[in-house]
Amino acid sequence: MRDTPAAYAALFIAAMMFAAPCHAQSSQAADPDEARIQDLITASHILANEGILDSFGHVSARSAKNPDHFFMPRAMPPARVTRADIVEVGLDCKPVAPDAPRLNGERYIHCEIYKARSDIQSVIHTHDLAVIPFGLTGIPLRPVVAQAGFLPPETPLFEVREANASQKKRGMLVLNADLGDALAEKLGANPVILMRGHGDTVVGKSVREATVRTIYTHIDALAQSAALALSPKITAMDDAELETNATENFDADRPWQNYKQRLPTGQ
Amino acid sequence: MRDTPAAYAALFIAAMMFAAPCHAQSSQAADPDEARIQDLITASHILANEGILDSFGHVSARSAKNPDHFFMPRAMPPARVTRADIVEVGLDCKPVAPDAPRLNGERYIHCEIYKARSDIQSVIHTHDLAVIPFGLTGIPLRPVVAQAGFLPPETPLFEVREANASQKKRGMLVLNADLGDALAEKLGANPVILMRGHGDTVVGKSVREATVRTIYTHIDALAQSAALALSPKITAMDDAELETNATENFDADRPWQNYKQRLPTGQ
Amino acid sequence: MRDTPAAYAALFIAAMMFAAPCHAQSSQAADPDEARIQDLITASHILANEGILDSFGHVSARSAKNPDHFFMPRAMPPARVTRADIVEVGLDCKPVAPDAPRLNGERYIHCEIYKARSDIQSVIHTHDLAVIPFGLTGIPLRPVVAQAGFLPPETPLFEVREANASQKKRGMLVLNADLGDALAEKLGANPVILMRGHGDTVVGKSVREATVRTIYTHIDALAQSAALALSPKITAMDDAELETNATENFDADRPWQNYKQRLPTGQ
Amino acid sequence: MRDTPAAYAALFIAAMMFAAPCHAQSSQAADPDEARIQDLITASHILANEGILDSFGHVSARSAKNPDHFFMPRAMPPARVTRADIVEVGLDCKPVAPDAPRLNGERYIHCEIYKARSDIQSVIHTHDLAVIPFGLTGIPLRPVVAQAGFLPPETPLFEVREANASQKKRGMLVLNADLGDALAEKLGANPVILMRGHGDTVVGKSVREATVRTIYTHIDALAQSAALALSPKITAMDDAELETNATENFDADRPWQNYKQRLPTGQ
Repeated sequence: MRDTPAAYAALFIAAMMFAAPCHAQSSQAADPDEARIQDLITASHILANEGILDSFGHVSARSAKNPDHFFMPRAMPPARVTRADIVEVGLDCKPVAPDAPRLNGERYIHCEIYKARSDIQSVIHTHDLAVIPFGLTGIPLRPVVAQAGFLPPETPLFEVREANASQKKRGMLVLNADLGDALAEKLGANPVILMRGHGDTVVGKSVREATVRTIYTHIDALAQSAALALSPKITAMDDAELETNATENFDADRPWQNYKQRLPTGQ
Repeated sequence: MRDTPAAYAALFIAAMMFAAPCHAQSSQAADPDEARIQDLITASHILANEGILDSFGHVSARSAKNPDHFFMPRAMPPARVTRADIVEVGLDCKPVAPDAPRLNGERYIHCEIYKARSDIQSVIHTHDLAVIPFGLTGIPLRPVVAQAGFLPPETPLFEVREANASQKKRGMLVLNADLGDALAEKLGANPVILMRGHGDTVVGKSVREATVRTIYTHIDALAQSAALALSPKITAMDDAELETNATENFDADRPWQNYKQRLPTGQ
Repeated sequence: MRDTPAAYAALFIAAMMFAAPCHAQSSQAADPDEARIQDLITASHILANEGILDSFGHVSARSAKNPDHFFMPRAMPPARVTRADIVEVGLDCKPVAPDAPRLNGERYIHCEIYKARSDIQSVIHTHDLAVIPFGLTGIPLRPVVAQAGFLPPETPLFEVREANASQKKRGMLVLNADLGDALAEKLGANPVILMRGHGDTVVGKSVREATVRTIYTHIDALAQSAALALSPKITAMDDAELETNATENFDADRPWQNYKQRLPTGQ
Repeated sequence: MRDTPAAYAALFIAAMMFAAPCHAQSSQAADPDEARIQDLITASHILANEGILDSFGHVSARSAKNPDHFFMPRAMPPARVTRADIVEVGLDCKPVAPDAPRLNGERYIHCEIYKARSDIQSVIHTHDLAVIPFGLTGIPLRPVVAQAGFLPPETPLFEVREANASQKKRGMLVLNADLGDALAEKLGANPVILMRGHGDTVVGKSVREATVRTIYTHIDALAQSAALALSPKITAMDDAELETNATENFDADRPWQNYKQRLPTGQ
């Protein structure tokens, strides 16, 4: 029993090692792909913690070293993604490693957008309940709050039924390259596309930008919904305000740090 | 005082034994009924943690070894159910053991559905606030989000007043076999039935399937309500989408694991 | 430093003594007034924890030993009430002890109801946001969910402006015996009265009954509001259902235990 | 290993020093500016914890020692503000210290209000989602709950587009003295001004008063929105009730203490 304090100390040390980011991380960050992967993991945790990602949904990041590859988690809930769950995927939507774990069925969202948009470094697909009412009713989502000034006057809506029109058997999910391509086409040069009965897909020049855009799309949808419950006549941002927004826009790193610090300790 | 570290260690060990699943569990899991009972307990905790089960409501599981029996907790709040609270009940709605603790008054929901539906291995009854507005207004709950594609085009509604029409004294609860039978009849081959002013009842081929269906019925109701607040005209899933859903449906184990991991430590 | 484990143990013991109900409590419970006071404290914590009591609002309990006295906390937020904050008050709304701390200005709600209703052992006044829309619009609150079957077909509404009609200077709060009396008169034999722009007041034959009624009034108001957002035509409980409810009603102790167990550890 | 208990004790002590308010604080409180700064920090944490301040928004306090100066945090999320983040700013909106960290772009809200309103000791700017629907629809925010009796019959709305009317390039944010001045002018002698698509700005004779007003403006907006969802005809406080409110108003310290105690330990 004299050794009990030692056993104690071991327990504590184990707990701290489990909780703390490993030492190797700082050196890994020197690898641009590892830095992106760390952000991808953090973004998955943040968006789950804020109630925007559910059991499904996924965050991906293009490889900095090989722009024809990208990283995304294996098929699993985003709240628990760790480095070991990240898979490198080619633009053909196949994992690079032959023994890769099972991928998300909707990975075609990512492949086709990375192919169509060389400017895009990160893609996020959510089932965000805040945006779904817009897709279900066809009422356009507009930029109404200052921080959502990155949105176009009307965010495009992907109606999977149209993309599937020629198919005999058709569902709701983006499970093949054709549907992913139709989604990317409808997205065009926009930062966000709504998906009827499904959620949205958001893109950005970095994981952090895509994450912050996902959150402010969510907040903007909540604000517009609440306003429409009071009156059908609302004032959205106008062209001059949207144009100015590009220059007076906020630093994405500030909300990123804020939402990161809201994560439960240890994530 | 020299013995304090030992006392300490004992405290720690006690705490860990309390929190951790007991060793016996893995061997118990070899017993198919014990595995179902563990899922039933976890489902009770999950649905309370997600705000779907309140102080009432109950999850049951049919016995794998004796399909004329099922397991449900004694009359108590689902958030705190443990193995010791589980009672084995016959399809006559009487506990198998003569000295069983008091059962839920509404156990007839379970007995009658297990009698009517030999395909069903689990029944969940909730007071879910998200679905109640549909029963109160008679507006049909429709499958509007992709993950709720297991729902029929219109979820049936149980109007207890009709089932009670010939009774002089009639209330809201399903407190006898006649009402349970009427509920099971109205449920038919559907996965979910709404209950006016009361909540819903959800069935599945496993506890996990019934649990995930209960959660996505909740989410679907939230999405449809929010959409109807914007416009009376909404786009629900159509027949082709619902048909396809059967094959492209998600793995129920993924949301199950996700919601299980959201439980406070120690449950 | 050899004594550190002892210091540790002391810390632990102190923490546990703070968190655990003190031993004296069980003997105190033999005193019927102490048992009511313990429930009053727990009810204050529960209703704050469930978001129904804010910084204001108060729970009181009539004295079992002297029915012309009652107990309520001094003027303070209900979430932090302890035994030391409880004041014994006469039906004249004056504290029994000459050196009592400052009482809530709205204690007249309690005095006048205890005078008018000898059947009532507990009074709860809240600023519950869920019921306020009914008072602001004049739309009657109805019993729509089975667990709110204790409500009358229409819950009475106290319009302070009417009670104040003859006053030159008139406000919103129940700050004197006349207003308390008018409130008690409007309450009549009902379990709940709404207060326009203010909240509600709920009564019961015990602290636990009043607490559970306060929570289910809250839930009923949420359900009715959500239903009215979908359609103006809703089905409330009818007379037969309300009558039966008196006998098939649930045990108030079950939700009481459930909500008590949801309190953060240590309360 | 014999020293382990010592290491332990050190860990514990470190943790407690981190969590507890430092001893120096009580002596600092003797300095009126330090007392205001402590309140400013607590207010930032409270309003973030209650979901009213997001990654942006800011609380400021006028200097008691030099009324031409005020204190506000550097550009950062309010949830994490500490003493080291507080910057002293002149009414010219420039930091007093030459090497001050980057300030919030919208500091002009504060400078111009402090210039226009010598009675005001604290200014709070939020992106509160509860008030935004009023600005987007032009529906006036009215005092509907008793605790919001400090509001005027209609809270003024700042339409930045009007203030910007003569500008070719115009955005949503208050990024210069002209816009700050227009905001202060529209605020007039009121306690609160709404900002379309942006949030609100609230003032008070102390940080605590401004904080409690910010919270009850939020609650009032929630109550009015929920009431308007039921019916367009609502009863707001009338002139007599608003006039009386000035004298029967509650002690701001009570909600302040309540919301402070809701902060996670250690803040």
